[in-house]
Amino acid sequence: MTASPLNTRLSTRWPLLQAPMAGAQDSAMALAVSGAGGLGALPCAMLAPDALRAELATLAASGLPYNVNWFCHTPPVPDAAREAAWRAALQPYFEELGLDASAIPTGPGRAPFSAEAAELMAEFRPPVVSFHFGLPAPGLLARVKSWGAFVLSSATTVREALWLQEHGADAIIAQGLEAGGHRGHFLSDDLSEQMGSFALLPQVVAAVRVPVIAAGGIADAAGVRAALALGAAGVQVGTAYLCADEALTTPAHRAALRSEAARHTVLTNLVTGRPARGIVNRVMRELGPISAAPSEFPLATAAMAGLRAAAEKRGIQDFTHWWSGQNASGCQSAPAADITRALARGFDPDNDR
Amino acid sequence: MTASPLNTRLSTRWPLLQAPMAGAQDSAMALAVSGAGGLGALPCAMLAPDALRAELATLAASGLPYNVNWFCHTPPVPDAAREAAWRAALQPYFEELGLDASAIPTGPGRAPFSAEAAELMAEFRPPVVSFHFGLPAPGLLARVKSWGAFVLSSATTVREALWLQEHGADAIIAQGLEAGGHRGHFLSDDLSEQMGSFALLPQVVAAVRVPVIAAGGIADAAGVRAALALGAAGVQVGTAYLCADEALTTPAHRAALRSEAARHTVLTNLVTGRPARGIVNRVMRELGPISAAPSEFPLATAAMAGLRAAAEKRGIQDFTHWWSGQNASGCQSAPAADITRALARGFDPDNDR
Repeated sequence: MTASPLNTRLSTRWPLLQAPMAGAQDSAMALAVSGAGGLGALPCAMLAPDALRAELATLAASGLPYNVNWFCHTPPVPDAAREAAWRAALQPYFEELGLDASAIPTGPGRAPFSAEAAELMAEFRPPVVSFHFGLPAPGLLARVKSWGAFVLSSATTVREALWLQEHGADAIIAQGLEAGGHRGHFLSDDLSEQMGSFALLPQVVAAVRVPVIAAGGIADAAGVRAALALGAAGVQVGTAYLCADEALTTPAHRAALRSEAARHTVLTNLVTGRPARGIVNRVMRELGPISAAPSEFPLATAAMAGLRAAAEKRGIQDFTHWWSGQNASGCQSAPAADITRALARGFDPDNDR
Repeated sequence: MTASPLNTRLSTRWPLLQAPMAGAQDSAMALAVSGAGGLGALPCAMLAPDALRAELATLAASGLPYNVNWFCHTPPVPDAAREAAWRAALQPYFEELGLDASAIPTGPGRAPFSAEAAELMAEFRPPVVSFHFGLPAPGLLARVKSWGAFVLSSATTVREALWLQEHGADAIIAQGLEAGGHRGHFLSDDLSEQMGSFALLPQVVAAVRVPVIAAGGIADAAGVRAALALGAAGVQVGTAYLCADEALTTPAHRAALRSEAARHTVLTNLVTGRPARGIVNRVMRELGPISAAPSEFPLATAAMAGLRAAAEKRGIQDFTHWWSGQNASGCQSAPAADITRALARGFDPDNDR
């Protein structure tokens, strides 16, 4: 590699990325991580336009590097029959809670990247923009690149990594099966193709020319060292930030992450319609965790969110998703800056072993 | 840790174990690995008593350290209805090949560890004995320990690792989801509990007092370094030995391992009744790869083996299983001693990075 190191290209002290975690963090976490020498991220999939503008303004005003993250799925055409089938699958739970399912609105749940989003971002020119589920259409991607943004996306197979390189990603996040939250696969829905980091990372590194960022299972400095040993140019860490002071994680989610419950996570499509990893809960146990019932991503979100909200009002967590990777051992109640500095020790060769 | 290093306890130069691979290798591979400074293994699940005696005699005569490996499942009671259902699921294939399914005998396919096996081993006193699927009954395990054997078994979850430590394992193999061949799980059949090495290994290391051997996805010296960074006391490598000169791997299997086909492996229970990882083939694609149809392990073996043998006679590989882990990038046509020495460079701190 003759290119400059990844941290130089990200304008950070270390090539350490905080994984964007929609619903679990906002710009406060991003600023804390970037201030400590990593690259903080703003997840945009669940932000309304006004909130998005405010968050981008906050990040841009900081003078720190930051990463703005988008889901770039194609919104599906709503399918009334499929939505009815999804609600029918949940009907026993609606009844158990005395809920009128028809009172729960439909809706997308997650916003995709769009021309409007690109225009809004262009005002702030975020230095790093990352995508999940592939890349946006060429014209939209060109718009993002027009202000010099460094573009990242996630690969879950060697084939996806090659595709991303070919289509303009400046670096590739190799998302191992251990990772929490949504899987980033986009060329195949066959979950059996998903690989653990020990297999995915070195094979992606061998296949592409661009820098590869390891994600999935990295919980501490030792994990960083292991990823570097396998050829990673940098790492992305999510779960270890979920109990940070700046996280929006609920007390129940924090407690679960720090309990034995976190030893059993599953990939489930019950929350949004796409597979995402979280701590197993009652509805995942009873319906799936992978089921044919949910509406297409992200339309499945609305019904489950309504069920969850109603249950939580009654103090019931049976339908609450607590995203987590398979290695929650790094979760600490601490400022995100401290977590960042502890992870960054993995980049210091003097601390090796 | 005040105990001596794992390589001292194994009497090897490096704490590098060749994974036992029933059907793919015999004592020739074990001797080559042990002669080069690793710990070679003899898989016994598919050896008849006479062959077992001959193999043990060969290994014992070498004066080298070696590991004798057993499956320690409880043999199931044959269930005629379930076997009939399994053969019914395969009937379209039998018909396609013009085969009379009733001519294919039933049989166990894999032998479990037993009192007879313990008595035979006692004549040779193998220095290391490893088990898959837990540990044998206490009396049998005591017999193995009576000649001072160092006992290993595989854990696929933290709970299994704690169980093995409690029940007498001297070291634990943390078998990440990336690993090829049979999964070693024994406390739960729920495959969603299986973890990638990046998550499993450090959590097992943190949970137990005994040395932990990393397995799953380790293909080269970089993989060894990564495993050590995550706290492993040693590593076990299987797939990278499958194209060794001493391997019994078929030419077709070798070709598949070194092709893009090896990028898609699956856990399948179609071959023996228990989940094992191999390169996806037609029958895995069409029936599963995980199916309710197979008879209980290992009874499912007979029908699939009959189908496979008949198909292979006609030059058809649709039913042939090619075990592989998720990282076949280390497969080389080379003497096993060379592969061992290349892997062992991962233990040399001067070669770090």
